Amino acid sequence: MTTKEQIAESYKQIQDEICLGLELADGKGKFIEEIWKREGGGGGRTRIFQNGSVIEKGGVNFSAVYGKLPEVIKKAFEVAEDDFFATGVSIVIHPNHPWIPIIHMNIRYFEVSDTMRWFGGGIDLTPHYVVDEDARFFHQYLKKVCDQFNSEFYQKFKSWADDYFFIKHREETRGVGGIFYDRLTPETASISWEQIFEFSKVIGRAFVPIYTELINRNRSKSFTADEKQWQYQRRSRYAEFNLVYDAGTKFGLETNGRIESILMSLPPQANWIYDFKAKANSEEEKTLSLLKKGIDWIY
Amino acid sequence: MTTKEQIAESYKQIQDEICLGLELADGKGKFIEEIWKREGGGGGRTRIFQNGSVIEKGGVNFSAVYGKLPEVIKKAFEVAEDDFFATGVSIVIHPNHPWIPIIHMNIRYFEVSDTMRWFGGGIDLTPHYVVDEDARFFHQYLKKVCDQFNSEFYQKFKSWADDYFFIKHREETRGVGGIFYDRLTPETASISWEQIFEFSKVIGRAFVPIYTELINRNRSKSFTADEKQWQYQRRSRYAEFNLVYDAGTKFGLETNGRIESILMSLPPQANWIYDFKAKANSEEEKTLSLLKKGIDWIY
Repeated sequence: MTTKEQIAESYKQIQDEICLGLELADGKGKFIEEIWKREGGGGGRTRIFQNGSVIEKGGVNFSAVYGKLPEVIKKAFEVAEDDFFATGVSIVIHPNHPWIPIIHMNIRYFEVSDTMRWFGGGIDLTPHYVVDEDARFFHQYLKKVCDQFNSEFYQKFKSWADDYFFIKHREETRGVGGIFYDRLTPETASISWEQIFEFSKVIGRAFVPIYTELINRNRSKSFTADEKQWQYQRRSRYAEFNLVYDAGTKFGLETNGRIESILMSLPPQANWIYDFKAKANSEEEKTLSLLKKGIDWIY
Repeated sequence: MTTKEQIAESYKQIQDEICLGLELADGKGKFIEEIWKREGGGGGRTRIFQNGSVIEKGGVNFSAVYGKLPEVIKKAFEVAEDDFFATGVSIVIHPNHPWIPIIHMNIRYFEVSDTMRWFGGGIDLTPHYVVDEDARFFHQYLKKVCDQFNSEFYQKFKSWADDYFFIKHREETRGVGGIFYDRLTPETASISWEQIFEFSKVIGRAFVPIYTELINRNRSKSFTADEKQWQYQRRSRYAEFNLVYDAGTKFGLETNGRIESILMSLPPQANWIYDFKAKANSEEEKTLSLLKKGIDWIY
């Protein structure tokens, strides 16, 4: 079995690859890095990208932390032991162009006292404007990744993402979904530990080709001031999801995590307009109509 | 004892007075009204003000709702009965000028099955830039209001506001506080029901003179683009507080309240800048240094 140190090392490597890939795709900006240590044990590398040619604000974070689990988390995770180790890579990118989607990716590994361990992660897309072919490309790509490991993964993890990335009070999904999985073990995944680890690395390495393609498909489209306004409004929904529902954000806020790393996911600018109604037959109305669970993008 | 219908009628009247007063203070904009009905019983009047000469976005909401309490709320309120009635006025104003503060006011009355009842409410100030004299004026005014009813109210409710309007993950208060009180009854307040009701009305009627004064003191100050940016950043903290901690917002989201009325409190535009550091000896640094509990503004 791969050790936790090897997993952390691989994830760190993936962070490096993704940062290089994103700088190349953007063509202008550079990441700035902050190395931080956690009081209870471990630390991380927060890498932030601001005001690039495409990426307005983005973060690619790596962390590997260990120590004693707080009581509230032990309860939430239903574990009795309290020595934990957690490592992962977490990304959120807010592009400046309203036709390029917001994207999020996370791969993580967690273990408690050498007795329980699991992998979690996923990747999902939040277009300001849903472009059918882009959503289809995205889901088809994820299906191919999943199918290499288990032919049931895609459907299962796609539904999981639909349920997870849901803004209950708005009755809308955060975007067009993707895949989400948690507590993956040989029992739940029907593949070996090595294969689960491999699966998480393949997802991590799918990020750059997927997002580069989505950037290049859309970056030279022209857009209007109204479309820019719409982008700011969609970003406010993203902020609502992350602050009200996102488990990783809640976990971070409740355990006194590094606030600026946790909240790097929040948009550079978000607008809340009272009771906005999309015009009939507009692109905005079309997008809203597609923010629902259960859409089959593989056809 | 005043009936719940009379309380609702008075609060509705106060909503009318406040809207007239704010239109006068702004000098340009007008409220638009939406009357809504609640499926389980009752309804409200949402009044929204957008793009005035001073008020960029504001809401003055009245509601009087009744019906059966959801299980989750019964637990939170520690009540066994489930026929409830609730009425109140709730205000949040986001001004366009960075030197005019954001302000919030709420007065509310709640009863369950004619056996339990209480009043709650408060008023608090969130300056983008703390102006000492304005904070002092605000607190002195509130102290005078409180002192008419009980000489202990101001200190007690001022501390309560410090504790309530606290952004735990930032370790900063939302602003310079004000007063906050809940579950006020003759037992907890040492004054009669009539006096408690009167107290809530006096707070409601203090809103317009207080905010008009704060607008007029600051509206003709010039400001820079950097100060405007800072305003957007402070507003993002306001959004964080309301989405992560505010009890009224949580209550509304969990009970399927009218979303646009609940979230009218969110700013028209908010910006999140990664790891912003205020310059030494700047106005921004001064403001951050004053966002803490326990400051005595009455001197």
